[in-house]
Amino acid sequence: MSSSLQFGLLVFPRITQLDMTGPLQVFSSLPGAEVHLVWKRIEAVQSDTVLSILPTTTFADCPRLDVICVPGGYGTDDLMGDDEVLNFLRTQAAGAKFVTSVCTGSLVLAAARLLEGRKAATHWSAIDVLPVFGVTASRERVCIDGNRITGGGITAGIDLGLTVISELVDRRTAEAIQLRLEYNPAPPFNAGSPETAPADVLALLQERMKVAKARRLDLAKAAAARAS
Amino acid sequence: MSSSLQFGLLVFPRITQLDMTGPLQVFSSLPGAEVHLVWKRIEAVQSDTVLSILPTTTFADCPRLDVICVPGGYGTDDLMGDDEVLNFLRTQAAGAKFVTSVCTGSLVLAAARLLEGRKAATHWSAIDVLPVFGVTASRERVCIDGNRITGGGITAGIDLGLTVISELVDRRTAEAIQLRLEYNPAPPFNAGSPETAPADVLALLQERMKVAKARRLDLAKAAAARAS
Repeated sequence: MSSSLQFGLLVFPRITQLDMTGPLQVFSSLPGAEVHLVWKRIEAVQSDTVLSILPTTTFADCPRLDVICVPGGYGTDDLMGDDEVLNFLRTQAAGAKFVTSVCTGSLVLAAARLLEGRKAATHWSAIDVLPVFGVTASRERVCIDGNRITGGGITAGIDLGLTVISELVDRRTAEAIQLRLEYNPAPPFNAGSPETAPADVLALLQERMKVAKARRLDLAKAAAARAS
Repeated sequence: MSSSLQFGLLVFPRITQLDMTGPLQVFSSLPGAEVHLVWKRIEAVQSDTVLSILPTTTFADCPRLDVICVPGGYGTDDLMGDDEVLNFLRTQAAGAKFVTSVCTGSLVLAAARLLEGRKAATHWSAIDVLPVFGVTASRERVCIDGNRITGGGITAGIDLGLTVISELVDRRTAEAIQLRLEYNPAPPFNAGSPETAPADVLALLQERMKVAKARRLDLAKAAAARAS
């Protein structure tokens, strides 16, 4: 139906698949929703896991989206400087009801100048990157600033998806989806944020991420300099 | 490396993709893990969303798994009576360290007689089906009974994945994965279980699921009768 709500999730090489598959499940649970997986070409992209993802439409063929969602992952390093991607996002954002992201997807929205002067969430390891693009980093799980709704790292995509449905449709509809997905989380430990994780666990992750983090910051600075 | 831990997630038509992609992200975050998406043939299966999933190996080629995980979804209706699937699970279960499921995946393990006399979790809408196979239904988020670890509905797959890593490796390793995935959930509402959802939301879902629920129970009874 032409009156269906149109959701588009960007997919790309080295996407963190759960950043995308979380909100995908939420959006797809909305009766009558049409959901698109969008990339440059109809050609499988390899996620950060063994899952390969086949786009359902291309930038050229994608309908006007009511909700656009940019997931994160190491692949966002390249997207920050990719004009084809940034132009697609800018064009869709102009007509969208909500422009959203999960994890480091907000860095791509920022590189497209879609978050300038606003606040946004991202993965905890990337909060130093947002200010490079003139964006105020938020440590909220889901950050709402006008029609920009951005989520924290990876698993925040589920919280983001439910928030988007609530804002776009209504709370009861979002609650019905939450119940269907039995989203009643019970993490076995309390290590899900740098503020609560044991110090040695945090130090281990920081050490593992050090090289990738420095590279990401350099690429963001180059992208910001090019765009200004 | 032959010493890597081998994880296998069953994929199948009409799988609820988040049942699989949640634990997939957790298992894939374990350094050195080898993760397989297993089905009868190397041929894309359509999930309950627009995401199609390409298996990485077949029942015939799958290595001996340390952890086998059966996700849920409406497709499990057919799997309960599918000898090729049930035989694969029985063979793998004999050598596995942990036999696990998410959501209605436990109905398939039950149909394979891998949960007989045990307790197990499943989606809240399917708790009446487990006793058909001589299994005690548990309302725990993650239910551990010996080396059988079963999760509740859909999103419970993330909690299940972290629990499996903690049991299989150690708690610190699971905590590092939790931090990496920023699994610090903050549902915007408290409607994630029948016990906490507003009564009208629960009634709406029960009405929507009624036909599918009755069909599932009939198929389970037929599968149980055939096997006994």
